[in-house]
Amino acid sequence: MAVATDRYVDYRLSLSLVGTVVKYLAAAPLFPVLVAVYYGESVLPFVATSAVMVAVGLALEQLSEGGDLGHREAFLLVSLSWLVIPILGTVPYLVAGNGTVAGPVNALFESMSGFTTTGSTVMGEISFERHSHALLMWRQLSQWLGGMGILVLMVAILPELSVGGAQIMNEEAPGLSIEKLTPRIQETARALWKIYVGLTVLAALVYFGLDAVGLGTNMGVYNAVAHALTTLPTGGFSPEGRSVEAFSPAIQWAVVPFMVVAGTNFALFWYALDGRVSKLTDNAEFRSYLAVMGLVTAAITALLFSGLGIASASPNVGTIPGNLENSLRQATFQVAAIVTTTGYASMDFNNWHPVAQTVLLFAFFLGGSAGSAAGSIKIVRWVLVRKAMARSLFTSVHPEAVKPVRVGDDAVAEETLRDVFVFIMIFLTLFVVSTVLLYVDSLFVERMDLTGLEAMSVAIATLGNVGPGFGAVGPMGNFELFSDPAKLYMVFLMWIGRLEILSVLVILTPAYWRS
Amino acid sequence: MAVATDRYVDYRLSLSLVGTVVKYLAAAPLFPVLVAVYYGESVLPFVATSAVMVAVGLALEQLSEGGDLGHREAFLLVSLSWLVIPILGTVPYLVAGNGTVAGPVNALFESMSGFTTTGSTVMGEISFERHSHALLMWRQLSQWLGGMGILVLMVAILPELSVGGAQIMNEEAPGLSIEKLTPRIQETARALWKIYVGLTVLAALVYFGLDAVGLGTNMGVYNAVAHALTTLPTGGFSPEGRSVEAFSPAIQWAVVPFMVVAGTNFALFWYALDGRVSKLTDNAEFRSYLAVMGLVTAAITALLFSGLGIASASPNVGTIPGNLENSLRQATFQVAAIVTTTGYASMDFNNWHPVAQTVLLFAFFLGGSAGSAAGSIKIVRWVLVRKAMARSLFTSVHPEAVKPVRVGDDAVAEETLRDVFVFIMIFLTLFVVSTVLLYVDSLFVERMDLTGLEAMSVAIATLGNVGPGFGAVGPMGNFELFSDPAKLYMVFLMWIGRLEILSVLVILTPAYWRS
Ligand SMILES: [K+]
Ligand SMILES: [K+]
Repeated sequence: MAVATDRYVDYRLSLSLVGTVVKYLAAAPLFPVLVAVYYGESVLPFVATSAVMVAVGLALEQLSEGGDLGHREAFLLVSLSWLVIPILGTVPYLVAGNGTVAGPVNALFESMSGFTTTGSTVMGEISFERHSHALLMWRQLSQWLGGMGILVLMVAILPELSVGGAQIMNEEAPGLSIEKLTPRIQETARALWKIYVGLTVLAALVYFGLDAVGLGTNMGVYNAVAHALTTLPTGGFSPEGRSVEAFSPAIQWAVVPFMVVAGTNFALFWYALDGRVSKLTDNAEFRSYLAVMGLVTAAITALLFSGLGIASASPNVGTIPGNLENSLRQATFQVAAIVTTTGYASMDFNNWHPVAQTVLLFAFFLGGSAGSAAGSIKIVRWVLVRKAMARSLFTSVHPEAVKPVRVGDDAVAEETLRDVFVFIMIFLTLFVVSTVLLYVDSLFVERMDLTGLEAMSVAIATLGNVGPGFGAVGPMGNFELFSDPAKLYMVFLMWIGRLEILSVLVILTPAYWRS
Repeated sequence: MAVATDRYVDYRLSLSLVGTVVKYLAAAPLFPVLVAVYYGESVLPFVATSAVMVAVGLALEQLSEGGDLGHREAFLLVSLSWLVIPILGTVPYLVAGNGTVAGPVNALFESMSGFTTTGSTVMGEISFERHSHALLMWRQLSQWLGGMGILVLMVAILPELSVGGAQIMNEEAPGLSIEKLTPRIQETARALWKIYVGLTVLAALVYFGLDAVGLGTNMGVYNAVAHALTTLPTGGFSPEGRSVEAFSPAIQWAVVPFMVVAGTNFALFWYALDGRVSKLTDNAEFRSYLAVMGLVTAAITALLFSGLGIASASPNVGTIPGNLENSLRQATFQVAAIVTTTGYASMDFNNWHPVAQTVLLFAFFLGGSAGSAAGSIKIVRWVLVRKAMARSLFTSVHPEAVKPVRVGDDAVAEETLRDVFVFIMIFLTLFVVSTVLLYVDSLFVERMDLTGLEAMSVAIATLGNVGPGFGAVGPMGNFELFSDPAKLYMVFLMWIGRLEILSVLVILTPAYWRS
């Protein structure tokens, strides 16, 4: 990859490449068009979107004749893609004109939440009475498309740009020998997308198959496809207002392994399919990821089973204290949904006891694996922090010792460790500042009565691309009540969180723009 | 300093040196003896304490004939000193046998809170009807003695042990040329203590003097000395149940600069007194310390002045919206009290609006300067984090650049930066885990109704050695309601927080004890 620090940023090249992506994306609305035709609904919102995308894509492409994509142009390309595409993605909501998402701020919130695979929603009423099948499918599809982009970003682009310690994934990524960025991205993307598409098809078949053999309820072809489209990108949107609670226990159990897979480093699947299964099973992050989910699940299962997990006041909570299958399922599902940052729910965890909720709040900060579409801080960073802490304790006693931090067999570069710490500090700072801002803003909104815990959950749900939070913004609730400035701020959080924060922050520094 | 990693830890040497410290400390209870004699109160609690200290000190001293104080023995000496001395410091409370502090757990809490200069209290009723003048003076004195120890720890011992990035203070410390640890500690201690004693005397004179010229209320010799003893160590204990609210505005204004001084690196005063005032005025941490206090004060002054700072429901809040002197004084005082981790209060900030409280909660994490008796994270660490973040953003764009982080004119070693990040991560992890544990415990205590914000404030107030929190543990409240396990856990937090966490953690690692 060419290092281009001796000239001005070629922002026209970045915009032109955004145009190319948008041009190809114009094919995507054809899927909801098919859905609309099948259900006899209006195709206009999606035809209009496709037309706008072609026009904008071609116009942007004209800005440059091509050139050398350097570090800085790549940062701009990434940041602008996740800004321009979500903006264009609002067209279906605006043209359809139904419900709360028809307003411009709400449409942008919903679209950004889709393409960043966050899953927070401002849809007041999620039903086919209010919205067309096609529009709700577009909402699902936006997450699936966002997930495709994120996978390439995480595995191929950010490691090259050394963002937030993302270089630790480098060695696991396929196609290392290729020198130019663009062909490398293309090859890696092709390999990942094959796996991504395959897993999506498999999920849809399993969801529908369980229904077909009598183990499901309510899981027809539409719902099977709709949920497969938001499982693999760890998205979490659902055309059902009560998320996965709307389905049978068997379906809920079936969703869990797909969420876990969606939160795993996809590059490891690439090796596993190549016959090198040990690359997956021996992976330090993968093992920690499973271990931490197992631990948190065990804790919450015990709470739910004992009955402590359930707030005494709520009449119908969907959990049955003393029923092991029920407690284990609710705990496993919710923990997997939060750790992988998918954000589905098999019950309204607002009904849980504060202790169980507090344990769950922890899980919001873990994040899935690097190299997946999962958001938040990510397990591998925590693994490195834990090891760096242990190293510091050791060198305090043995100051003469030179002891690199190791993950698996490899020593981690000190620069990478440093970037990981900086990332986490910026992430946490942004979380704290956002909690305060959103809390303060809520004080000026009538009918809002946000607690401190709820304000924290809103900040991490959006910044970590998790989706639901606690209280009014719980898994069966929505973000509609917030003020417009607060919603726009959350759009910013979803955007910056999705791009590992630093990719956006760098373009805001003067050093970035200087030649 | 001899590095002694090739043999077992000489724990008997560490214990023996703790014994020497305790033996000298046996002179301290003579001060409350004088107070008791003056007021015609019982001298027994203090004579008993002195006797116990002499006995324990001499017994511990027998354990070793002396030897080479290495890294590991120094860690043990530090950790054990702040455990053994607070335990011995419970004797006056136990022998006096009055009020809530007469129970063993409460006495340990109060004594640990004293010697760690935390200032959290479990005294239900703070008055001369309930407690003798002598006992309340012992409580004040425990903070002053703790502060003497902390200064030496911070300026002379921890930098040598490279704990949590404390080595950044090294270059500012006097007496660098001396090679052996013990003489160096002695020389540094003598220099610092002269400044510490001088400032304490000055504070007492100013407090009493204002009263003598008619600008004070209630500030006789007893109160002047009592408050001087807890200002300089950033302690915050007061024999007045309503803290500094009990005194006139002039006295409140006079306390502010002494708190600011108490939160400044004492080594800088050493240079300033030596004629090199620019060492103080050009110091990067000192400037950031003043700037950050100025900023937070301005924000809270604006809130209080506008009337937004005051919760509408409270009848008598001690602030007067629209009165600039009042708003400025309450804001300045509370911000200085929290940033310096002194923990005095000029009003009950529980009556503030949640917005102003939230801003203040931030300040709990700042901490005063390194090289003072202030607790919490400390400004210099935040300065380094901010610079490391800026550096990471720069190197993301210019990956070929080699750019050290600078504080003032000096490049900071990468190992120091790393230690700072590790320290902050461990501190924050401990804060979060403690918040959850204390919150969960409070659910099982009758009559306790802790909110999330209050639980956070309890954790940071004790871990950061600040003192008061929000709600029931506010500046006019106390920690008595907590369960015994929760109190013992807070004793642990005050202890580990005071010793910069890592000094305690290292002795809990297996590598520490291996030869
Ligand atoms: K999500
Ligand atoms: K204090």
